[in-house]
Amino acid sequence: MSQRVGVIGGGQLARMMIPAATNLGLEFFVLAESPDSSARLAATTVGDYTDANTVLAFARECDVITFDHEHVPAHVLAALGDAGVSIHPAPHALHFAQDKLAMRERLTELGIPQPDWARASSAADCDAFIASHGGSAVAKTPRGGYDGKGVRFISSSDEVADWLETGADILLEEAVSFRRELAQLIARRPSGESALWPVVETVQANGVCSEVIAPAPGGEGPIEEMAADIARRVANGLDVTGVLAVELFETTDERILVNELAMRPHNSGHWTIEGAVTSQFEQHLRAVLDLPLGSTALRGESIVMVNILGGPATGALADRLPQALERHPEAKVHLYGKSPRPGRKVGHVTVLADILEDAVAQARGAAGFFQD
Amino acid sequence: MSQRVGVIGGGQLARMMIPAATNLGLEFFVLAESPDSSARLAATTVGDYTDANTVLAFARECDVITFDHEHVPAHVLAALGDAGVSIHPAPHALHFAQDKLAMRERLTELGIPQPDWARASSAADCDAFIASHGGSAVAKTPRGGYDGKGVRFISSSDEVADWLETGADILLEEAVSFRRELAQLIARRPSGESALWPVVETVQANGVCSEVIAPAPGGEGPIEEMAADIARRVANGLDVTGVLAVELFETTDERILVNELAMRPHNSGHWTIEGAVTSQFEQHLRAVLDLPLGSTALRGESIVMVNILGGPATGALADRLPQALERHPEAKVHLYGKSPRPGRKVGHVTVLADILEDAVAQARGAAGFFQD
Repeated sequence: MSQRVGVIGGGQLARMMIPAATNLGLEFFVLAESPDSSARLAATTVGDYTDANTVLAFARECDVITFDHEHVPAHVLAALGDAGVSIHPAPHALHFAQDKLAMRERLTELGIPQPDWARASSAADCDAFIASHGGSAVAKTPRGGYDGKGVRFISSSDEVADWLETGADILLEEAVSFRRELAQLIARRPSGESALWPVVETVQANGVCSEVIAPAPGGEGPIEEMAADIARRVANGLDVTGVLAVELFETTDERILVNELAMRPHNSGHWTIEGAVTSQFEQHLRAVLDLPLGSTALRGESIVMVNILGGPATGALADRLPQALERHPEAKVHLYGKSPRPGRKVGHVTVLADILEDAVAQARGAAGFFQD
Repeated sequence: MSQRVGVIGGGQLARMMIPAATNLGLEFFVLAESPDSSARLAATTVGDYTDANTVLAFARECDVITFDHEHVPAHVLAALGDAGVSIHPAPHALHFAQDKLAMRERLTELGIPQPDWARASSAADCDAFIASHGGSAVAKTPRGGYDGKGVRFISSSDEVADWLETGADILLEEAVSFRRELAQLIARRPSGESALWPVVETVQANGVCSEVIAPAPGGEGPIEEMAADIARRVANGLDVTGVLAVELFETTDERILVNELAMRPHNSGHWTIEGAVTSQFEQHLRAVLDLPLGSTALRGESIVMVNILGGPATGALADRLPQALERHPEAKVHLYGKSPRPGRKVGHVTVLADILEDAVAQARGAAGFFQD
């Protein structure tokens, strides 16, 4: 009997698990927010992931439950756990991806290098942290942020007055002086086996990932070792199962610090679909089913992924496909079946090449056809 | 608006189009024989492909219709044509894949190298052909054969008496003395653009493909050129749209002769999923939608595909997955969601390696875990 994987959330991460599930002969189910979800190609149930009964009914048809996003409420996760559902990552791990204050506290306990941080519950807390960190800080809501949402660069507590008014604590972090951003992806099975892809460079625009370069240029040696060591310690220390993405700062003084964590396939790993022997989507499915992990070796010298953000101002995304494919026969175009909105991730392009500059030019060129 | 592709037939070829359709953001529909078809992961209608009304109703929801198999009857294809449905390959091309006598006649007109052949309608026809070809022949039913079915090696008309009794003509071919079998895949768009993958070597066991090696060892130079020239002439001459697989004999006197044709993705091209920049499944979808074709460059030095035939005598195919993945982290395992039966194609394994022998050993090793 094939194993039945259920994914909560019908976004592009669930969608990109479909090919991997198809190949491995798994049965694949999605609990989606709406009938026109990105993952609608798979066997889809439409329902509210914040409703425990809905999620329990969905989970009863599956052997394991995993996630497209981190927003399933704790009370729903607890109900699943009480019902004996196999959940990966487990709620006790997922907690640290849902709550950034809990994550910072736990990473401190584990001695993982990270920016200076503090819990702030008042304007005085904020102003004190800002004063002791050169007059600025990064303020974050502990929950619900993604793609730059829930993050502000501040120089005064006035700029987070609305957040403080809600009564919830906020997270303050030093504004790290970094050379670039990196991401280290790791997959870990319940039995403990883990596998890492090479560390990659990520480029952000307006708080959203715009490009990923694999492997990170000049990432061999100490940087590679530090990034891998951090990812292993986080995955083991937090008991993460499935894919864990560790977003990192490479500082101007050559340290590697943890920026964010995601416990699921991640934008920084989309290049693995064509670029690695085992993609992050296949590896995630293998990991959550406790199947042996696959090789993470690269299929090319340089691999570049460019996000398609927003889409055309007029006409449909698909209308641009002929031109993009015509001009870039090497480009692997991925469209997520989503309606374009300014800044929304609606697809991506991956190119493998012997020369990094060629891969960058082709991937940007092909992605550019889908944007105005 | 994304284009809507409808596939008639729910076998593994339709199934393996799902990842390509997912990536390109296409809407994908399957008219399957049964609810437990191999392609059931996609949006599936269950119905009889020999019933014109069923097929017409299915086609109305699609922008283009293509095929998982060649068995759709001519009257159904005619009804689709009359209704203005876009069909690729078109019925006038598909005819030559459905009727081997028609194919031999047309290839003769085109001057394509092929085995000596004859149409036989009587025992006397058969015995005369056998006598003039060294005492043996290959007899084929013109329609309905696949994977060695409908093919007999004969030395007397007695051995096809049952076929002759039906009153239908049969095809006789010389028993070619061949060194090995090859396959040349080509994709062609309605607008005429075509793209070829390198010629591959195919290994058959009991009339069924068991292994494919890409590129064919020693296939560079004259062999490559002859195979490509034949495929281009067949695709153009028969006006094939989509993927065309040309199965070839490499004779002991170094000629290349056409054995069989298939107008759809083909077992000899499964290696392209990981082994080429553009897989045969993506290329087929691009071609039938008249989208620009993708690069057919290889992703590795040597690529080997081994079929999983039959499956375990006891237990489920999926039960063997952990061991196979454990021992072969480089292997890409594909299971088709089909129930094992002796000799049935239920999956395949592809391995890319720098050294051919390594790829062969790993692919055979991994596939072996699924068979007894």
